[in-house]
Amino acid sequence: MAITLYDLAAADADRRFSPFCWRTRMALAHKDLEVDSVPWRFTETDKIAFSGQGKVPVIVDGGKTVFDSWTIADYLDAAYPDRPPLLASPRERALAKFVGAWTDTVLHPGLARLIMADVWAHLDDKAKPYFRESREKRFGTTLEAFCADRDSKLAAFRQSLTPLRATLQAQPYLGGDGPDYADYIVFGGFQWARVISTVQLLAADDPVAAWRQRLLDAFDGLAGKAKGYPV
Amino acid sequence: MAITLYDLAAADADRRFSPFCWRTRMALAHKDLEVDSVPWRFTETDKIAFSGQGKVPVIVDGGKTVFDSWTIADYLDAAYPDRPPLLASPRERALAKFVGAWTDTVLHPGLARLIMADVWAHLDDKAKPYFRESREKRFGTTLEAFCADRDSKLAAFRQSLTPLRATLQAQPYLGGDGPDYADYIVFGGFQWARVISTVQLLAADDPVAAWRQRLLDAFDGLAGKAKGYPV
Repeated sequence: MAITLYDLAAADADRRFSPFCWRTRMALAHKDLEVDSVPWRFTETDKIAFSGQGKVPVIVDGGKTVFDSWTIADYLDAAYPDRPPLLASPRERALAKFVGAWTDTVLHPGLARLIMADVWAHLDDKAKPYFRESREKRFGTTLEAFCADRDSKLAAFRQSLTPLRATLQAQPYLGGDGPDYADYIVFGGFQWARVISTVQLLAADDPVAAWRQRLLDAFDGLAGKAKGYPV
Repeated sequence: MAITLYDLAAADADRRFSPFCWRTRMALAHKDLEVDSVPWRFTETDKIAFSGQGKVPVIVDGGKTVFDSWTIADYLDAAYPDRPPLLASPRERALAKFVGAWTDTVLHPGLARLIMADVWAHLDDKAKPYFRESREKRFGTTLEAFCADRDSKLAAFRQSLTPLRATLQAQPYLGGDGPDYADYIVFGGFQWARVISTVQLLAADDPVAAWRQRLLDAFDGLAGKAKGYPV
């Protein structure tokens, strides 16, 4: 039986933009598990109330409900030990936590300043006021001011990728010869941007762009064929 | 028979300040290998010419000469598979590479702007002109200008540690419950600073400081007892 994934969607239900849901979507593909993906919008708290909290990703696997992308990754490795591991040992998991911390505290904040206004523009009419209010409170300014002067921010964003770039110059994936969950954590951020924004995050000759393309092409183009903008 | 380590030293031969040599020193201790540490100074190229290159760390293990801290770590895991692994799998190694890239491109450059003038001040008279000339060429300015206005740089440095801090808030080591080579990579930078500079890099309540203290205390205080300044 397919695993159900509640997956954040824009006004257009095919536009799935959550970086955290993309971590889970790629993780499910990595483990070659069948997925029944359900579009979910910010204001549809009722629809996932059964999980006891209000955020996606949420998965339902048979009778089991799991939420939070890290918890889901751990669950999938524990529940499907015969499938390719996302993280094969406690130490791999610990090291991937640093990749996750870098993603959450460097990559995502840098992306947010480039694309948050684009996120708002793609939302359905019910979600728009919720999103604007909650984010403007968090950022302490309007979405438009937060995302102003994108060109000058883009240079700083590309500069912030230096550790990622140096790693991917020396090896094809963060996981080495093949991708592991650390790759999906970082890739989720790039896919978030691609689905919701026309911003060209990377120069064509950037090793990060080559890595992103490999992951866009992975699993029969799962992420690359998903509705979004060209990279 | 003890492994010989050629280890970068200041004018005072007991002051061992290379972050890369500290990676190797901690790695040797992790694997519980006996070490015969030889102080080496920047201008003593003759002394390590047998290695076919001019930088430390260099180790000699029986008849085998190995240089470059990453190559040494790989060598130690391959040559001593029954000792505690520095990195237990190709994937762990790949993930540790990202930690290394972050260290080389974020942590070390941030530290350099705080301590490079202190490094120069501790060198022997023969090494001083070499160090000043080579570093001023690299930085495009004098050591004094490069390291000016330390107080304002310290705030930016502490901010740059956010991914490390977030990780160490959630787990005691980058390697999880215990340290692995990724920890020694990052720790090498902090030990570089402690040995050569009085700068107080971290606030006392910083989780990074607690982690550093655990590594200063590790292996009977190997790094903590080494000649340097109090943290």
